[in-house]
Amino acid sequence: MSRFLSDNYKSLVPYVPGEQVNVKVIKLNTNESPFPPSPKVKEVLSEEVIDKLNLYSDPELKELTAAIAKQFDVTPDMVFCGNGSDDVLAFAIMGFCGRGGKLCCPEISYGFYPVYADIFGVELEQIPLNDDFSINAEDYIGKNKNIVIANPNAPTGLALSFDDVERIVSSNPDNLVIMDEAYMAFCYDSCMELVKKYPNLLVTRTFSKSHSLAGLRVGFGIAQKEIIEDLNKLKFSFNPYNINTLSVKAAAAAIADNEYYDDKISQIVATREKVQNQLRELGFRCTDSKSNFIFASSDRISAAELAAELRKRNILVRYFNKAKIDNYLRITVGAADDMQTLVSAITEILEERA
Amino acid sequence: MSRFLSDNYKSLVPYVPGEQVNVKVIKLNTNESPFPPSPKVKEVLSEEVIDKLNLYSDPELKELTAAIAKQFDVTPDMVFCGNGSDDVLAFAIMGFCGRGGKLCCPEISYGFYPVYADIFGVELEQIPLNDDFSINAEDYIGKNKNIVIANPNAPTGLALSFDDVERIVSSNPDNLVIMDEAYMAFCYDSCMELVKKYPNLLVTRTFSKSHSLAGLRVGFGIAQKEIIEDLNKLKFSFNPYNINTLSVKAAAAAIADNEYYDDKISQIVATREKVQNQLRELGFRCTDSKSNFIFASSDRISAAELAAELRKRNILVRYFNKAKIDNYLRITVGAADDMQTLVSAITEILEERA
Repeated sequence: MSRFLSDNYKSLVPYVPGEQVNVKVIKLNTNESPFPPSPKVKEVLSEEVIDKLNLYSDPELKELTAAIAKQFDVTPDMVFCGNGSDDVLAFAIMGFCGRGGKLCCPEISYGFYPVYADIFGVELEQIPLNDDFSINAEDYIGKNKNIVIANPNAPTGLALSFDDVERIVSSNPDNLVIMDEAYMAFCYDSCMELVKKYPNLLVTRTFSKSHSLAGLRVGFGIAQKEIIEDLNKLKFSFNPYNINTLSVKAAAAAIADNEYYDDKISQIVATREKVQNQLRELGFRCTDSKSNFIFASSDRISAAELAAELRKRNILVRYFNKAKIDNYLRITVGAADDMQTLVSAITEILEERA
Repeated sequence: MSRFLSDNYKSLVPYVPGEQVNVKVIKLNTNESPFPPSPKVKEVLSEEVIDKLNLYSDPELKELTAAIAKQFDVTPDMVFCGNGSDDVLAFAIMGFCGRGGKLCCPEISYGFYPVYADIFGVELEQIPLNDDFSINAEDYIGKNKNIVIANPNAPTGLALSFDDVERIVSSNPDNLVIMDEAYMAFCYDSCMELVKKYPNLLVTRTFSKSHSLAGLRVGFGIAQKEIIEDLNKLKFSFNPYNINTLSVKAAAAAIADNEYYDDKISQIVATREKVQNQLRELGFRCTDSKSNFIFASSDRISAAELAAELRKRNILVRYFNKAKIDNYLRITVGAADDMQTLVSAITEILEERA
């Protein structure tokens, strides 16, 4: 730390991303898609486009917001795009929870929410989950605080129903409810249509998981236009050109290619169901994950040990050294054959210890 | 504005970027390079790289920081990369000037500094320039506030000498001095070597101007490692994956291609000198710009009128409706032939009014 850092940030503990590696491994630790992006992405990243990178990107992101708006049947003024959905969440928590504002979220959820609360000086209430890791919707009814919920939740994979989400949103009319739908493409139960009905709902999405573009950094939020105006006001006061030209073109091409991604998402969902069942047959407890990862625990081996054993076999999974979930692993649903390698490796590890 | 925006931001006035247009014009309004990026950029944005965009970008940006460190003869732990240098400036002003911290900058300078001060709750002193638009270094000696200065300054184009910069940095040991060298490639008088000597100096740069990559959004700051650690702490608490994979690869390739960019920068500097002289012959007052733009005023036509007349001829320049500079135009140094079209157009406009 330098002598110059403001007192506000001296005790800040940053988010720790999952490990990125260069060696050849089966990488099931950061919930990336195992598939390359749509071939349309390569088409739009042409030499002609690259030669024009001397020009600034469009700060209003018209091409991308139009493509997203069309996909979700909203108007472009209901779409805010960010440099990853982390960017959208940061601006939203900064802007709407303010300094000294109040926010609540599930106690076990995306690890970045408490970090945002810390950096922006927000009073955060972390609400415990039920014993089965499900979110108790009643805890959020008429809460009278801003709310952020990952749906499906991470790392549990469990989803709130559309009806529960509507009850939460409708019972907190004076506070913003952020539904972080980073994993919703694998769940098929989005609350997106509620944005037209409720002025206090912001739904965020990302291209990083379902659209195989984690390396491109594009996310977005959809809400009524007053919310989007506020987010743009913050963006234009922080980093107006927040998404580069290549990411805009690629994401706009990707989101229009439903045929490609619907197929890939179906494959991931099918693999998830298959591997969850295989793990259960091996004695694992698995949540009923609706995302592109599995959340699993075994009485036969501790999660920390299993992660270490898998790592020796060049398979990376995510272990959280955190109360209540420290005997669970979060395992990304990768390519079908890689997942069978995983199942075989786990079988072998368990047999060695039997 | 929504009902939900925090009181902190209700009166925030965002930065207004220069206009981006789609029609065919001579675009001299946002200080972009007229040249395409290095051919090496196209080479590294390969189909293989695009196919791997399903994987997250490296949050530590090792490839890019190493390439920048090599270029400036510093260690990689002295380099912080941002999604444009706006991103670097935002984190620096947020982190080091804190809420209630003190910052000063030239009264006429990059229009974003007051916006940052506003969004981050920083007390900003804007120090008037000399009558000839030069910065009086004495005003910043022993100031005992954080300092941000664009050098060369924008939109004046005037530069502080290396010695003046050192006097400012050395006389404010307990405060951070940010030297924003966005345009320094066109000036050849960087203070970069001072970062090794002074722990309170942060020098920022961008790929947007000299390196023909405005559309790619990459900037960086160089300072001693404690400052860089602080900036990374904020980044990892706001948006860990702040630069996408394509921008990392392209910028790393670009910064290594000195041969290409040295030539392009020389051409821009030569064009700047030529056109400044031509404008002076037409009776304009021009500052001695050391950047990739010209700052010019004429008694024969108001700046606002001239900008409007040029626009009718499909030539865009930047007019600031701001006290003290409202009779000046900031004209980007574009391609040599486009600049001759500009000079001809101005000659014609003046003759029509003679």
